[in-house]
This record gives sequence, C-alpha cells and structure tokens, in this order.
Amino acid sequence: MNLEAFVLGTGGVMPLPGRHLTSVLLRREGDLFLFDCGEGTQISLRQLKLRWKKINVVFLSHTHADHVTGLPGILMLSSQVDRDDPLYIIGPPNTAKYVETSRTVLNMHINYDIVVKEITEPGIVYEDDGFSVRAFGLRHTRQCFGYALEEESRPGVFHPELARDCGVPEGPLWSKLQKGESVESADGSTVEPDQVLGAARHGRKFAYVTDTRYFDGISREVRGADLLVCEGMFTDDLTANAQDKGHMTATQAARVARDAGNVGKLGLIHYSPRYTEHDLRKLASEARLVFKHSFLTRDRQVIDIPFTE
Amino acid sequence: MNLEAFVLGTGGVMPLPGRHLTSVLLRREGDLFLFDCGEGTQISLRQLKLRWKKINVVFLSHTHADHVTGLPGILMLSSQVDRDDPLYIIGPPNTAKYVETSRTVLNMHINYDIVVKEITEPGIVYEDDGFSVRAFGLRHTRQCFGYALEEESRPGVFHPELARDCGVPEGPLWSKLQKGESVESADGSTVEPDQVLGAARHGRKFAYVTDTRYFDGISREVRGADLLVCEGMFTDDLTANAQDKGHMTATQAARVARDAGNVGKLGLIHYSPRYTEHDLRKLASEARLVFKHSFLTRDRQVIDIPFTE
Repeated sequence: MNLEAFVLGTGGVMPLPGRHLTSVLLRREGDLFLFDCGEGTQISLRQLKLRWKKINVVFLSHTHADHVTGLPGILMLSSQVDRDDPLYIIGPPNTAKYVETSRTVLNMHINYDIVVKEITEPGIVYEDDGFSVRAFGLRHTRQCFGYALEEESRPGVFHPELARDCGVPEGPLWSKLQKGESVESADGSTVEPDQVLGAARHGRKFAYVTDTRYFDGISREVRGADLLVCEGMFTDDLTANAQDKGHMTATQAARVARDAGNVGKLGLIHYSPRYTEHDLRKLASEARLVFKHSFLTRDRQVIDIPFTE
Repeated sequence: MNLEAFVLGTGGVMPLPGRHLTSVLLRREGDLFLFDCGEGTQISLRQLKLRWKKINVVFLSHTHADHVTGLPGILMLSSQVDRDDPLYIIGPPNTAKYVETSRTVLNMHINYDIVVKEITEPGIVYEDDGFSVRAFGLRHTRQCFGYALEEESRPGVFHPELARDCGVPEGPLWSKLQKGESVESADGSTVEPDQVLGAARHGRKFAYVTDTRYFDGISREVRGADLLVCEGMFTDDLTANAQDKGHMTATQAARVARDAGNVGKLGLIHYSPRYTEHDLRKLASEARLVFKHSFLTRDRQVIDIPFTE
C-alpha cells in the first residue's frame, strides 16, 4: 500500500513565481488528503498531473489567507466529477464560516456533500480503515493545528517454518494467519497467528506542522514520524523575528525532529519569501547541524513514505 | 502620460500552469487599476516586477470564485507598504460581503482604508483627474459588469504660427494657451485658446468585458475603445455552449468590436481551459475574419495604449 506526499507548495505568506503557498497532498492508495490550500494549490495539482478531484479530506492548519484561499477553487472544480462520498473539511473554528460564506457569496454550484468539522481540542479528528489523523494545538497568531496521520500496526512477519511445524500446509490458511486470523491445523488443533508471526510492526506516520512558534510540546506529537513536514521559515539570525510572528526557524524545526525521537526525515517548508532559491540552502544546512535527516522540500516534489519494518 | 495594460492572466474557470485567471492591471502614469483578481493574480504581478502594492481601485466584474479569490492575498500584502489614500473596490452586490467576510474570517490585518462601492445600475463609478470609469451591465449567470475607462478630451494641436499672428511671443504664454487658458497679447488684447489650437482631441479609452453571453448592447459601451479586452472563450463550434454558460465565442467578441465602431484593437481573453496554447490560434483566426485587429492576449503581456491623435 503506497503512501506518498506530493509537495504542492513550499512558500509562506505570498506565492512566488515557482514557489506556491505551503500545501501538501498525501495519497494513501487511492485516498487523498490535502493539508492546507493556499492560493494556487490547484495549479500545482495540475502540474503534477494528479487526478485530484475526489479529495477525501482537507485539513486546514488555520484560516489565514495564505493557507485557505485556494479552497474555493478546489471546491468549485471538484464538482466537475461525480462522487458519492462527502468531502470532509477539518480545521479550527472559522472553517465552517469560511466554507459557507465562500459557497454563498461566490455562488458556487457544488454537486456533492461537504462535511465541515471544526476542531475545538486536540485529538483524533478523522479515522478510516487502518489509520487515523490526530490534530494537535500549535502556537501561532491565531488558533492553529498540526496533524499526524498514523497507520495502525500491521501483523508481524510470517514465518513459514513455524506454520509448517504447527501442521498448517502452504496455501489459503497461510494467508489467513498472515492477516491475523486463527486457523485449524491438519490434526484439528487451533493455530493462533502469534504462533507463526513475529512482533506486530508499526504502521507509517506522516506529520504536518505549520504555522507555529517553537515550543517543546510539538515533539511528542510527531514522535516516530516517518516523514515530518515542518515549517522552517527563517534562518537562525531571525530567531527573535520568528518568535514574534509565530513562526519557527529551520533550526527549531530540526530540534523538534531530533527531540521527538525516531523521526525518519524532516522536510522543511513554509519558507519566508525573503529567501531566494539559493538562500534556502542556508536553512537546510542550519537544520542538518541539529538533525541530519533534514532536507528542503521543493514545489512538486514527490516523497515516498515506505514501510521501514 | 503613459497608459499601459498589463495582462496578469488570460484563463477562465481554473488557473493552468502558465495561464493564470483573467485579470488586467491598467497603469495610468503612477495610478493602478486592477480589473478582476482571481487566484494567483499576485504571482503575475510579481513576475512582471510591478510595484503594485498601492493599487488605486479594484474593479470586479462579478463575484465568481475565478474572478475574486486572489483578492484576500492582495489586500493582505498591500499592508506591507504605507499608503494615505484608501483602496477602492468596486463591483456588483456581494462585493462588500466578500471583502468583509474575507477580512474577518481570515483575520487580516489591514493598515489602510478600504472603500467598497457596490454597483446597482450602469453609470460612472469612479472619477479622477482627467478620466472616468463607467460600468455597464453584462449578461452572465450572475450579476456582472463590464468597465470602460475613458479619458477626457485634450486640447487640440497648438499652432505656433497662429500664436505669433495673434501677437503672443514664444515662451510661458504658449504653455498657457496649450493648456486651454486665455492670455494677453503684446497689444493688450485677449487671445483665446481656440484661436491657436486645433479641434479638441479625444482621450484614450480602455474597455474590459467579461463574463457575458453575447448581446448587441455591448457594442455601444465600448465604442471608440483604443484597447478592448473582451472574453473570447470558445471557438465557433461551441457557440451554443457559450450561450448556455453565459460566455462568448471569439467570433462574437470580434462582432462586438466591429459593431462598436472605431475600436483600435481587440485583445481576446478568458480562454476555456479546454484549449491548449496551440489551440488558441483558432480563436484568433476566427476573430480576425470578423475584426482584423484582433489578437490573443497572453499572460504577462504589456500593451501600450498610445494617443492616436
């Protein structure tokens, strides 16, 4: 089962030529989860040639213009296909008002159901087969949430020799055991999955963190993330500025990743428009001093998130 | 006094890579007038390296998403400079609600005054030194207006030989006559400007027409436009489709230009996303069969609008 992150934009505050506003689409098999939706997000979706008009859920970090003004266009164009399931839009208070006023004031014709869920406190905000998404509070100039999509554990590795020892011959029964179901052996006794499987294996975890000033509570929310996409808006010399504006430096993002424990990769995002493409290298190098597996996300980058065990 | 149109986007419905949503910035000396403001308009403004953060007036044709969702970003970023004059936003009913809900729901910090003027009937909607802007009704799926910016007439050509004949020597008095003021000649008699000037010369006219189905009343509104920017969304084979959706074919746009009389150039705009860059040529060739001075506007094109007399 594939899990891939499509980086739709990496900029903060304003879109630049070649650098759209921060937004990430996560694709888990056929399901699509969009994290933030600034102006121009649909351009990146199109550039990536994604079939995106049946997004399952939009998660909004907060309702500042640079994170949401691409949403009306997405909602409108999603009506160009037929869908049975509703589109869920999950975000902080004001999300429903934004969606509703967009629909009415802009007179949008929408041919599917929209379910808005406003988050009032941290916790699981969405669940489906095999995974859940948890929202956690961030500290910005207005109410803001980070998100972590976490898959359930998978059954452990199957050991054929143990199955044979238990009297279960190769075939359909092996599949059942691999899925965690008990079966009957050749001599009529019951064989439980844990007799033939190794320890349960972790699912994958993706975390998305922006906009926020640094605080140490972020780390525990992103623990074990295979991919953490986290704002690293400024270089170290602007740490005070970042704090004032409710943003993080790349170094602080790296500290979050390091302190979380067991983070696979840190993808920096939400770059200040003051930095040219060349300048961004400094963000990466500052982050790597603290957390080696840091990298600059780039517009239209596709990041595979494989199982690690 | 320069008058230039900067084409910020030429697409309809959705922004495409390389084709932003329909928007035109008109610059008259230092003054800036923005016509429509879809998602991504600010990217084009930046690509053109325009100093755009003190726009005088935004004119909205209508409040469909593809014509207005770039506005919140523009309003937000305009706070990065200091300005004394308010920003005027002029558009159909719902404009005030859109601006107001954007400000409140998106929590925008705006450091200047915004004056919204909703248009309830055709007529002059904005005036300043030497020009006025007239709104006229279009026929789309919701209330929609076209706009024509028209300069006042300028004094006629100055004839030095006539001034000398009237006893006015070369110097500051000539300037006064050229500006339309009367002066005193060497023998004490009064010399009126019309004794030394040719017939008054027309000012320039710019007209912007989108979105609308074709109707013959458009022509009289754009009569004499030096530059008419007008939607030509579809090729002839989709005329019925255009009519249904409240849009025009390129041929119909050309008919408007031809029937108006004395139109200088017709710039087609608001292309259907179904057309590739290559396909667009067909729109141009269909329009030119009806009105020779038709051309395809292109993203980031700069069109000078000179005096013609």
